[in-house]
Amino acid sequence: MNNQKKYLVKFVPSGKSIKTSPGYNLKQAILDSGIYIDSSCGGVGTCGRCRVLVKEGKVSTKRSRFISPGEKQKGYVLSCLSKIESDLVVEVPVQKKVRAKIVGGRFTDMKSKVYADINKDHLSSIEIKPWIRKETIIIEKPSLSYGTSDLFRLKKSIRENMGIEECIVPIHIIRKLPLVLREKNWEVTVTVDMENNTLIDILPGKVSKKSYGLALDIGTTSLVIYLVDLEDGKIIGSESEYNPQIRFGEDIINRIVYANRKGGLEKLREVIIDSINNLIWKLMFNSHIDADNIVSMMVSGNATMMHLFYGVPPRYIREEPYVTVANQFSNSTAKEIGIKHIKNAHAYSIKGVASYLGGDIASGILATDMYRKEDLALFLDLGTNGELVVGNSEWMMGASCSAGPAFEGGGVKCGIRAVDGAIEKVSIDQKTYKCRVEIIGGGKPAGICGSGLIDVIGEMYLKGVIDRKGKFNKDIGNKYLKCMDKDCQYVLVDNKCSETGKDIFISEIDIDNLIRAKAAIYAGIKTLLEEVDLSVYDLDKIYIAGGLGRHLYIKNAVVIGMLPDVNTSKYFFMGNTSITGAYLSLLSEEKYKQSTKIADHITYIELSVNMKFMDRYVAGLFLPYTDMKDFPSVEENLYPLKSKPKK
Amino acid sequence: MNNQKKYLVKFVPSGKSIKTSPGYNLKQAILDSGIYIDSSCGGVGTCGRCRVLVKEGKVSTKRSRFISPGEKQKGYVLSCLSKIESDLVVEVPVQKKVRAKIVGGRFTDMKSKVYADINKDHLSSIEIKPWIRKETIIIEKPSLSYGTSDLFRLKKSIRENMGIEECIVPIHIIRKLPLVLREKNWEVTVTVDMENNTLIDILPGKVSKKSYGLALDIGTTSLVIYLVDLEDGKIIGSESEYNPQIRFGEDIINRIVYANRKGGLEKLREVIIDSINNLIWKLMFNSHIDADNIVSMMVSGNATMMHLFYGVPPRYIREEPYVTVANQFSNSTAKEIGIKHIKNAHAYSIKGVASYLGGDIASGILATDMYRKEDLALFLDLGTNGELVVGNSEWMMGASCSAGPAFEGGGVKCGIRAVDGAIEKVSIDQKTYKCRVEIIGGGKPAGICGSGLIDVIGEMYLKGVIDRKGKFNKDIGNKYLKCMDKDCQYVLVDNKCSETGKDIFISEIDIDNLIRAKAAIYAGIKTLLEEVDLSVYDLDKIYIAGGLGRHLYIKNAVVIGMLPDVNTSKYFFMGNTSITGAYLSLLSEEKYKQSTKIADHITYIELSVNMKFMDRYVAGLFLPYTDMKDFPSVEENLYPLKSKPKK
Repeated sequence: MNNQKKYLVKFVPSGKSIKTSPGYNLKQAILDSGIYIDSSCGGVGTCGRCRVLVKEGKVSTKRSRFISPGEKQKGYVLSCLSKIESDLVVEVPVQKKVRAKIVGGRFTDMKSKVYADINKDHLSSIEIKPWIRKETIIIEKPSLSYGTSDLFRLKKSIRENMGIEECIVPIHIIRKLPLVLREKNWEVTVTVDMENNTLIDILPGKVSKKSYGLALDIGTTSLVIYLVDLEDGKIIGSESEYNPQIRFGEDIINRIVYANRKGGLEKLREVIIDSINNLIWKLMFNSHIDADNIVSMMVSGNATMMHLFYGVPPRYIREEPYVTVANQFSNSTAKEIGIKHIKNAHAYSIKGVASYLGGDIASGILATDMYRKEDLALFLDLGTNGELVVGNSEWMMGASCSAGPAFEGGGVKCGIRAVDGAIEKVSIDQKTYKCRVEIIGGGKPAGICGSGLIDVIGEMYLKGVIDRKGKFNKDIGNKYLKCMDKDCQYVLVDNKCSETGKDIFISEIDIDNLIRAKAAIYAGIKTLLEEVDLSVYDLDKIYIAGGLGRHLYIKNAVVIGMLPDVNTSKYFFMGNTSITGAYLSLLSEEKYKQSTKIADHITYIELSVNMKFMDRYVAGLFLPYTDMKDFPSVEENLYPLKSKPKK
Repeated sequence: MNNQKKYLVKFVPSGKSIKTSPGYNLKQAILDSGIYIDSSCGGVGTCGRCRVLVKEGKVSTKRSRFISPGEKQKGYVLSCLSKIESDLVVEVPVQKKVRAKIVGGRFTDMKSKVYADINKDHLSSIEIKPWIRKETIIIEKPSLSYGTSDLFRLKKSIRENMGIEECIVPIHIIRKLPLVLREKNWEVTVTVDMENNTLIDILPGKVSKKSYGLALDIGTTSLVIYLVDLEDGKIIGSESEYNPQIRFGEDIINRIVYANRKGGLEKLREVIIDSINNLIWKLMFNSHIDADNIVSMMVSGNATMMHLFYGVPPRYIREEPYVTVANQFSNSTAKEIGIKHIKNAHAYSIKGVASYLGGDIASGILATDMYRKEDLALFLDLGTNGELVVGNSEWMMGASCSAGPAFEGGGVKCGIRAVDGAIEKVSIDQKTYKCRVEIIGGGKPAGICGSGLIDVIGEMYLKGVIDRKGKFNKDIGNKYLKCMDKDCQYVLVDNKCSETGKDIFISEIDIDNLIRAKAAIYAGIKTLLEEVDLSVYDLDKIYIAGGLGRHLYIKNAVVIGMLPDVNTSKYFFMGNTSITGAYLSLLSEEKYKQSTKIADHITYIELSVNMKFMDRYVAGLFLPYTDMKDFPSVEENLYPLKSKPKK
């Protein structure tokens, strides 16, 4: 029967081979054979990184914009989109170095950027003292006159050396205890979870091997993971990938809807756990660090992501009165939650505040210094949802406002995520209305990302291409504006210059989507401040975090009325603060406890039912705002509209 | 191929059938098909209870004393000893009622005896308050102004209703939490482990279903298990079986030796867990109680049995300085230790004192009142090992002395365990030296058990059949004494009257074995008392527990010098105190804590290296003792030796 047939797939130059069933996915076969192949999109054909050359044999494959017709002719395919249909010989390009990708929502080299930030800003300020501690201790020998149990004497030594009154020793450790204790004459190295007073591991003798931890940020769009040396805080490696749940729903609401379906929650959990297992495997593979030495894992993420990660139904997060099942999940072994490679490691999560103000935000606040300074600060995490916290060491108040997918490139015709090929910055020639664009990674532009959108709308408004309502000024002689009936498109890059062979443009609907998003953010900021009788001018510092933040052009974000019109020296870009907070909590017991205090400390304001918020949102549907007095600097920079005669 | 062949086995009168591989065990096939078949020996052919009639087809089977040649002709076989060799039709006798067996080391009806004891002596004295508690509580509803997490509000309600400051909620419960809370309008019934502050289960609404627990005694020879109603303390059912580890070693030392072999520990653990799973299944089957309502399990046993049950190497228990790995094992879910049916139940164990003074003894002390009275008491658990504790509410001191297998019928040619057919009592006619025997279960005698041995040796000594050294008096005209060279055997039952068709006799070697055993026990008692400058005459009470105890004829145990020669009204028979203590600890949190206090309270004296013990042991190798002054009543009863002329 056909089902029993197997095809032999040989890989060059590695010389490895594997037998597979007909129709088996080629990328999976490559991974199965033990060859590493990059694929940041999780195997859905959108990153183009798993390109291979089929030298002999037949595959069935899907079309891809990453493979030109000429390349296709030669046999190039994306392995993730290809099925094996005969015996094959496949050339898999050797991948010299695995680069970390997606930080702050885009592909970049984390080592030079985020690592540097962390090492400078944070490592100096914390005492490295993880709640997982490794120590070599001597256990008293038993004798006829001191015949207590091995366990009793072990606990006694832990109490005397590490100050834990009654250490919990799980049964799998008791099972190996007698042999381990006696192997090196009653000297052992213990790994203890100081938070839960639990012995995690015990090894004979003085073990000089280091211990490591994993910091993990589960974002709605992407996963980021660091492998950290728990002794000196050094980041040994990092990996990131799109959140594979994206294919079941782009944003939180769609994921919750999917989770409500039969088997939906299990599926969402399965794919995220698989992805994390893969990333951990890669980290271990590249660092040559043994799984047994990875002792802990700190997870940060928004409430919905945490529910899905732990397999808890998120349904009531989106039903009034919008409550979570839990804001923090029990500490457990990695194995208990499905993590494969580092079974014995303990997994912890950062506590969240409410349904739409999760542990990622508590983690973010931890990554700033606002929780210990008297200065009044605003923390703003800009992604699909805008989350904001205002306060200082005395008090904090937080809220969340749904910004829609525009900031992530969604709901916009030519929008893409902040990946290579995305337009991130735009300037418009005041005379010709021609656009100059800057593209992530250089190369040809493929679309426009969130920060590019904010930039282009600011520019369009300043240069008179659109009016205060976001409608095109059709009478200024803008030859890049193409109208068909009432439907107009402003072409930023024409089809000859684009990667896709199509125009890259902005429509009024796109502009409208972005205006709604920015109106929500600004209304959130104003509402929160006014709750405590403060205004944007009282703010000493504004921290911008999240996917959009890192490369945002503040000036134009102010022009469109998204961010407060205050001195730009008050703005600080923080990158992905969720992973930074997780990293700090991984390294320091004190920081971890602090993150819980932060979560408990923040008063949550529900904006979705707040009438003042609604009023301000409506007022924000103009550029920059209904009342121009809120944005004095914008008016100054506005180019006086000049009308050209219609043709 | 032959391997692929399947045989169809039909069972009458049930009408059930099953397909099996050639050579498959018939008893297992019966169980697999869902038919209950009794087998107290664990499937090794020694109890004869799994007899079936093969009506059609062929089996290969082993010979058994339970199947007569005539029965064999008709097709009767022991199913546990039979392999399936063709399609079969098998008649399985319908088992009307499962009787509890083996209590205090013998087959008896627990319901009428042990249950009565427990209900009279104990239930009146304890407050039933298990550490597992079930309560119906109301959770506060969330609202827009009170938007805390489900978990937070649940914990708050548990705190307010049950007084647990911070209840631990495992992830599998958090997963179902949102639906359970909302199903009956925020009313739920929670099952909480008050000892570990952990939520075990949560059900929607007011659940009137009762909760149950299991008390388990893992003895070296037998397993006993009770199913208990946690509300009123009623014993719903009980089961017992031989400890299936017996086939890997009769006593503790042999089990430890076997555990040291490659894979030995795993094997020993596997068979005991399998047996326990089977017993639990039977209990559930007979009581129609749902697995979900069984919430806890309390395990009692000696140190070696507990090591094997938890899969912990027992090796160092028998190597100087004789230490355990642990005297108490971590509480855990039943699932974590391999118990199948009652996965969510929590399993606890009674704390032990030392390698040879285990949790079974702490449990035993709990079953007496000696730990709360000022009276000086001696607790004696007589089995393969003799364990003894002396003391009162102020102090306690314990020791263990290896008595060898004689008390369990081992090391004695015609010795058997205290099962149906065992001689348990003997009286000797002073004139003819003919024995009258009493047999457990009536019927023909098959051998002699521990209490029978003590009885017959006491009788032999009193009636002059043997001398103080345990040697036969050959010149008294005893025609039941058969000698061949120097080797003499005293025939208690001749071959015509025995079940086996062979003489049942006692040899000098048998007597010697028993004298060594009794010498060890008495030396232990004397040594322990003298450590605190006390004598046997200071004892107010003597509690006899364990396999041998229940039917021991005290007078003759004193005659042979095993038990102190004090007023017999001071003696109390306690039966299997290990299971009684487990039962009490299951029902009462206070009793469970008390058992731990008892274990911590007992000062352990290592006798194996104690020179005074050795001296007294040697002094005890005479009947009743070197110094007859220790046993004044024995001398009074001794029949004056009369010599008869030799033939």
